[in-house]
Amino acid sequence: MKIENTRHSLSHLLAAVVLKKFPDVKLGIGPVIENGFYYDFLLPRSLAPEDLKDFEKEIKKLISQKLSFTIKKIAIAEAKKIFKDQPFKLELINEYTREKRPLSIYKTGDVFIDLCAGGHVKNSGEINADAFKLTSIAGAYWRGNEKNPQLQRIYGVAFENKKELNEYFKRLEEAEKRDHRIIGKKLDLFIFSDLVGKGLPLFTEKGSIIRRELERFIVEEEIKRGYKHVYTPEIARVELYKTSGHYPYYKDTMYPLMKIDEDELILRPMTCPHHFQLYSYKPRTYKELPIRIAELAKQFRYEKSGELTGLMRVRTFCLADAHIILAKEQAENEIHEVLNLIEFVTSKLGFHKETDYRYRLSLGDRKNAKKYYKDDKSWNLAENVLRKVLKERKSPFFEAQDEAAFYGPKIDIQMKNFLGKEDTAFTVQYDFVMPKRFNLTYIDKGGQKKEPIVIHRSSIGAIERTIAFILEKYAGALPLWLSPVQVKILNITERNQKYSESIYEKLRETDIRVELDDANKTIGKKIRDAELEKIPYILVVGDKEEKTGTVAVRQRGEGDLGSQKLSDFLQKIQKKITSKE
Amino acid sequence: MKIENTRHSLSHLLAAVVLKKFPDVKLGIGPVIENGFYYDFLLPRSLAPEDLKDFEKEIKKLISQKLSFTIKKIAIAEAKKIFKDQPFKLELINEYTREKRPLSIYKTGDVFIDLCAGGHVKNSGEINADAFKLTSIAGAYWRGNEKNPQLQRIYGVAFENKKELNEYFKRLEEAEKRDHRIIGKKLDLFIFSDLVGKGLPLFTEKGSIIRRELERFIVEEEIKRGYKHVYTPEIARVELYKTSGHYPYYKDTMYPLMKIDEDELILRPMTCPHHFQLYSYKPRTYKELPIRIAELAKQFRYEKSGELTGLMRVRTFCLADAHIILAKEQAENEIHEVLNLIEFVTSKLGFHKETDYRYRLSLGDRKNAKKYYKDDKSWNLAENVLRKVLKERKSPFFEAQDEAAFYGPKIDIQMKNFLGKEDTAFTVQYDFVMPKRFNLTYIDKGGQKKEPIVIHRSSIGAIERTIAFILEKYAGALPLWLSPVQVKILNITERNQKYSESIYEKLRETDIRVELDDANKTIGKKIRDAELEKIPYILVVGDKEEKTGTVAVRQRGEGDLGSQKLSDFLQKIQKKITSKE
Repeated sequence: MKIENTRHSLSHLLAAVVLKKFPDVKLGIGPVIENGFYYDFLLPRSLAPEDLKDFEKEIKKLISQKLSFTIKKIAIAEAKKIFKDQPFKLELINEYTREKRPLSIYKTGDVFIDLCAGGHVKNSGEINADAFKLTSIAGAYWRGNEKNPQLQRIYGVAFENKKELNEYFKRLEEAEKRDHRIIGKKLDLFIFSDLVGKGLPLFTEKGSIIRRELERFIVEEEIKRGYKHVYTPEIARVELYKTSGHYPYYKDTMYPLMKIDEDELILRPMTCPHHFQLYSYKPRTYKELPIRIAELAKQFRYEKSGELTGLMRVRTFCLADAHIILAKEQAENEIHEVLNLIEFVTSKLGFHKETDYRYRLSLGDRKNAKKYYKDDKSWNLAENVLRKVLKERKSPFFEAQDEAAFYGPKIDIQMKNFLGKEDTAFTVQYDFVMPKRFNLTYIDKGGQKKEPIVIHRSSIGAIERTIAFILEKYAGALPLWLSPVQVKILNITERNQKYSESIYEKLRETDIRVELDDANKTIGKKIRDAELEKIPYILVVGDKEEKTGTVAVRQRGEGDLGSQKLSDFLQKIQKKITSKE
Repeated sequence: MKIENTRHSLSHLLAAVVLKKFPDVKLGIGPVIENGFYYDFLLPRSLAPEDLKDFEKEIKKLISQKLSFTIKKIAIAEAKKIFKDQPFKLELINEYTREKRPLSIYKTGDVFIDLCAGGHVKNSGEINADAFKLTSIAGAYWRGNEKNPQLQRIYGVAFENKKELNEYFKRLEEAEKRDHRIIGKKLDLFIFSDLVGKGLPLFTEKGSIIRRELERFIVEEEIKRGYKHVYTPEIARVELYKTSGHYPYYKDTMYPLMKIDEDELILRPMTCPHHFQLYSYKPRTYKELPIRIAELAKQFRYEKSGELTGLMRVRTFCLADAHIILAKEQAENEIHEVLNLIEFVTSKLGFHKETDYRYRLSLGDRKNAKKYYKDDKSWNLAENVLRKVLKERKSPFFEAQDEAAFYGPKIDIQMKNFLGKEDTAFTVQYDFVMPKRFNLTYIDKGGQKKEPIVIHRSSIGAIERTIAFILEKYAGALPLWLSPVQVKILNITERNQKYSESIYEKLRETDIRVELDDANKTIGKKIRDAELEKIPYILVVGDKEEKTGTVAVRQRGEGDLGSQKLSDFLQKIQKKITSKE
């Protein structure tokens, strides 16, 4: 027996009990969905959670009555007669008629008839009464059209058995714990404001600490690896993007033009053409290559409001962006270097190849000259270089047709979220088009003018999205170096106030992010509060600690570590912070 | 005798010698300007610098001929006859006629006649032939209108004596040395790009280092002083600025609206309303105040293209901005704290009160309710608080009427540039209007809802402008901690290559910004190059240094300091860098 039949039959039973309670109800439709079902109703009043409890009880009664589910083909006239008081059903009947689709009804014992093509259980007794649940009520326009009446939709879930149902709720609970939007609110990391606008997050002090740590980490690391970190403006004349060719390709996701004097300015959707200006303002020679121009670059893309998702999908973001300009023959080595950097960065953030992400080789389509710059030879060469690098690294990867940029193929780092869904976190793109468009050149060993290629890459991605990934990965319990508050000091009694303050000052002087909870609460409550805030280290100080000049250390996830000298504790966590453990 | 007469007479002598060389020349006008004069000509060919030399020689001849300057009133008909071949003069004659202004001509001996009202020297012999110079040639439209023909304008300067002329050129040379636009180019710090747009600087790697150092310095310092550093988006719905009241007041300097779905977005001209969102998203109590919300905030203002000046006046800038929300009775103390911070920051940058800057108390106008929010009591209170603070500090300050913000009075930090011209570098504003508009509140000790006030302030100003000030202050020779390259290593011969590389690596490991000049050049040339780049420390390594394991240190401005152990040198400069000496 298929679980879908159970779910579908439950939607009929739901309609049956709603009809019993509200004889005037106008019935919408009741299909099977992932994990369960729903049914739409036009009702004389708004439903409350208690109604769902009632309905569940009534459904269980119908299940125990072992009602048969039987199908019957019927003629149009008969159908119209049966559903004469159901305008939505009549609308469907008319539509079926126009489309010349056969009509059938399903009878559930003698308590309910629905216009339906199946499939169903044969008998309601087959349904496990302990393995379903009505979960929520939501508004839904008839047929999804906002010009139609708004109905009330009741959602339910159903499984083969109670164990599966429980597992489902556990997964859901996990999602609640790991959804970065919920964590962000609980830990006070970022907000959205209606006045500021959709998809435009504002980072609080705590969220900003995470962001600043990530930004400094990547800037330091990239400079160490030979990148030149620059600042370029967030706006430019649209001519810049016409020259690059982005404008026609990405126009729909760019912001509107702003007319200033004789110029049309636009918020930048990407940074590459800005960086090319910083390459070509003076002559370059082979000795300087590769030139790696990097920036924490604010970018602006129009995303449909329905697609905006917390920090994961926003309308402005800060990309750790870079454009490496180099000789063609340097490409292979440099792509290895870029992937080394990405693997280093991801591992510092706690993401691991294979378990958390995998590589995707995104290829072009030689036949689609509209979507991809026409230059078969360069496409072949570029795709082969990327493929060769991935093979040499022995990294698991898969190839995806028709996923390249218009200017060349790319390697995408596909990150899995806590639900297993994949999203592109960073990319490494091979570009043989922009150097032509921006007339980028260098003088080679022989004194000849040559055309370089460009690698577009991001190392830590869009900071906003990366924060979302990290929050979900750690369910908010961030590594020490990223924690907005690293240590919280709790005094047991007022007697220990001065001592706790002296410890607070000592930690502050060493640049550790520390808070002191000296409120008038029990120590148990203070510990619970600090744990909810996911603070890595809690220092409890009472009479005993004060007398011995120590602190009682509680480590997140480890519990009570006992008393330590402050200097020992300090040394240990400073080492951890520096090494970004 | 007025110097203006000399300058004016020189412009006639210039016209006389040009006419002699180009008999077909069409004469424009030749007025006196600051430090000298110019004359406009329509000529059959472009002038070259050598022409100016010729003209100078010829003018000197005319001076030695002691030609008389004599005025004569003339009738319209006579004037038209005299200037029958001079269309620009005829245009002027017609205009004078229409405006019923009297006509007069000036005769210079019998070599030149000009339509002119004076004043002049009586005799060219009065002019000091050693105290003038023709300085440059530029294009200029007739009467400044680009629809008219373009003329060639010859500029000259003239003074009472040779000493004054020399002093003028010395001042000019100083300006050349200190103009941040020239320094920026010479030291490769920032560029502008036509494709990107006017007033939108792009910072190179080196310029970005200065910027990053300043940004990190101020963020660290402010966090130490209890500021919450945040990140908020560069765009917002225009409703945000309608709520704040900025939109009507500053509309002309804001960028155009961008329509996105049902919203109108705008690039932010200031950050305050963003920060208010981060205040008011949760209830606040008196215990939390003052709340200091700070940001390195990108802001966007439309400046007329004629007013754009290097980094001093741009169309987008990054302001070290903050908004302090506090109880009214905390204002005095907090303004002292803000001025303490500003004085700390300026002194770290090498600017000193009285010599480099002074305070301006900018007041409102109770009678102008259109320009200033109407609330006389609050204006009086606020102005008195600011005045009291300035008096308590015993800082020299002056008061300026009608220079306040629409929401309250302010203290401006007026910075002098190398020419003595004053510009506002930072401001501290007292605001009693925004809390009403954004409904900002806090719960006071007695449990009552109260309205706070806001202090808007900047500590290090707009980073771009501050960089301009610093570059001009130091003529590019930046303090060690701000220098893009702190140490340059020069090897004397190829034999010392390995040794110089080992020193380079050691310095790099300690995060000192170091370059190695191992090119095939003489050591003298290498030193000169490094000095032109204004590098603070030059390490010369040759056989002697290699043998003794030392480096020969040259300090900028101090010269040769002799040989030192690398570890001693390192220790010394690391200390200097850390203390930002």
